[in-house]
Amino acid sequence: MPTLTALTNHQIRLASRPVGLPTPANWQFTDEPVQQPGEGGVLLKTLALSLDPAMRGWMNEGKSYIPPVGIGEVMRAGGVGVVIASNNPAYAVGDHVSAGFGVQEYLTLENADFKRGGLVKIDLGMGSLTQWLNVLGMPGMTGYFGLMDVGQPKAGETVVVSGAAGAVGQTVGQMAKLKDCRVVGIAGGAAKCDWVVKELGFDACIDYKAGPSAVRDGLKEHCPTGVDVYFDNVGGEILDAVLARINRSARIIICGAISQYNNTTAVQGPKNYLSLLVNRARMEGIVVFDYADRYHLAVAEMADYLKSGKMKSKEDVVTGLNNFPEALNKLFSGENFGKLVLEVAAN
Amino acid sequence: MPTLTALTNHQIRLASRPVGLPTPANWQFTDEPVQQPGEGGVLLKTLALSLDPAMRGWMNEGKSYIPPVGIGEVMRAGGVGVVIASNNPAYAVGDHVSAGFGVQEYLTLENADFKRGGLVKIDLGMGSLTQWLNVLGMPGMTGYFGLMDVGQPKAGETVVVSGAAGAVGQTVGQMAKLKDCRVVGIAGGAAKCDWVVKELGFDACIDYKAGPSAVRDGLKEHCPTGVDVYFDNVGGEILDAVLARINRSARIIICGAISQYNNTTAVQGPKNYLSLLVNRARMEGIVVFDYADRYHLAVAEMADYLKSGKMKSKEDVVTGLNNFPEALNKLFSGENFGKLVLEVAAN
Repeated sequence: MPTLTALTNHQIRLASRPVGLPTPANWQFTDEPVQQPGEGGVLLKTLALSLDPAMRGWMNEGKSYIPPVGIGEVMRAGGVGVVIASNNPAYAVGDHVSAGFGVQEYLTLENADFKRGGLVKIDLGMGSLTQWLNVLGMPGMTGYFGLMDVGQPKAGETVVVSGAAGAVGQTVGQMAKLKDCRVVGIAGGAAKCDWVVKELGFDACIDYKAGPSAVRDGLKEHCPTGVDVYFDNVGGEILDAVLARINRSARIIICGAISQYNNTTAVQGPKNYLSLLVNRARMEGIVVFDYADRYHLAVAEMADYLKSGKMKSKEDVVTGLNNFPEALNKLFSGENFGKLVLEVAAN
Repeated sequence: MPTLTALTNHQIRLASRPVGLPTPANWQFTDEPVQQPGEGGVLLKTLALSLDPAMRGWMNEGKSYIPPVGIGEVMRAGGVGVVIASNNPAYAVGDHVSAGFGVQEYLTLENADFKRGGLVKIDLGMGSLTQWLNVLGMPGMTGYFGLMDVGQPKAGETVVVSGAAGAVGQTVGQMAKLKDCRVVGIAGGAAKCDWVVKELGFDACIDYKAGPSAVRDGLKEHCPTGVDVYFDNVGGEILDAVLARINRSARIIICGAISQYNNTTAVQGPKNYLSLLVNRARMEGIVVFDYADRYHLAVAEMADYLKSGKMKSKEDVVTGLNNFPEALNKLFSGENFGKLVLEVAAN
């Protein structure tokens, strides 16, 4: 075992709760000596972290599907990394793993914390490190189970997904195409829309930044028979525009509401929710953790699609732990193109 | 057959579309000679009409689950009546029937229109005329199928219903009690709340008129383990208050939104809809017509409950066709106590 005590762990902690968009004042940069793992434990080096819209929610006080990050705690983040010291025969130095690394360079995981820490070995033969944060990671699992279990798309139905070029949207749209649906994305800007149609094979993509009636007009044009499944990552006006176009027995998957996460006023509720009544339609939330016992099945299926070229993935990689604060905010401006990843170390 | 041509049919027609609460100017009173039914047809005399919140929606222009009532048309209304002339062996003079009577004293139904007109014989041995507009009629069917099929309550769960003293609410709450749920109503005023608890056996009832935090505080007090099923008849602030208290995998049945029907501004969307995400919960619309092929089963079940005293019903009867306009508006002020019925003729 190397002299690990010589290593310093750079960390980013939540200094205060943001009001609206996170600012530099909400973060604290700290250093700590790396801790040796105890009996049965492992020491992991962070290679890349997943930056997700959900992180904004974790920064807020209040009851949610998981407790908020405490003030002064290392910011929560899922990631991929490598075992650099092990007191556990199941993990060898050099093994690649996925875990709840947090925004820091190293993570010492004691044996009792393996499960809570989400420690899982990953096979780089199935997908690259960044794909393990994208299609094969939380966003991919979210898209897969949200679409398949909650949305239950049938061949020939029209599936609409917002945040189409984002991590979850990529998976949703491509899975829906594999299920023989008509797929219409909603994304910000011509470049993302082009990519979604030309590279991922969506039938159409609506650029919500193209004008105030772009989404309404686009849905009318590209969903001539209405919307059967809507996978919502954004909320706000776009959710309302889709509600106005849903079909009877439509399913709306509520995965997120990125348009509302940095509101300093109340969340904008969907004015058109009575369309659920008129159309006997359903709006249902999804939290990916509920499907943990089936991740391995979805990962195997999607790794096959990646290998055979039936599925593509795109990651937007920012380099350097210290760039975390600005990188995170790219999600809220819609600046990221593809799954946003923070590369912390090259290997 | 009596000299039917001597009879005059008094009618109330939609004169113009209301903006906000309907006013006298929206209605037109007309007279017509009663028409003889043709081969296979029947002539019906209206005894009582069902006054329902949904009527307000039918008065609006625009796409909904059924077309709007046209300007100049007799206002749509379901009702119960008696056959006074028949050219059809299946219907004898004196038979009681339920049908889409419209707000008028007589209805001539030709054979080809029996199905569209919803003509069904009713058995006054199973329930009274007004019960056939309440528990055994559309509101009862709406409550029954909305709760049982969409809400799927399990024994021990907490079921909340708004408009608890209304036609749909009565059925929902009593059915949920029969399924061994904890049942909490929301209604306007102490008298309705008392009745719902003491007569119908709800576990508690929250008076939403008791103060600005009455619903929030009441839910906290009376639903100590959270809300599993919410049957929503009202929308607005009450829907938001319940969303803040739902449990994991909760089901919200969207049946109506009476608080919003006379808005002259946009409908108020549920600000707390992201509680669906956090709680992996579902919000789903119901339209009773979808269950038409199973009405007879629910009617038989509920008629048994009425007979054995396991279910009670309360109707608020206003007399006289010409009182229709003011009677209808009682629904929107919450003035009615029980299912609102307009008695058009005594027999």
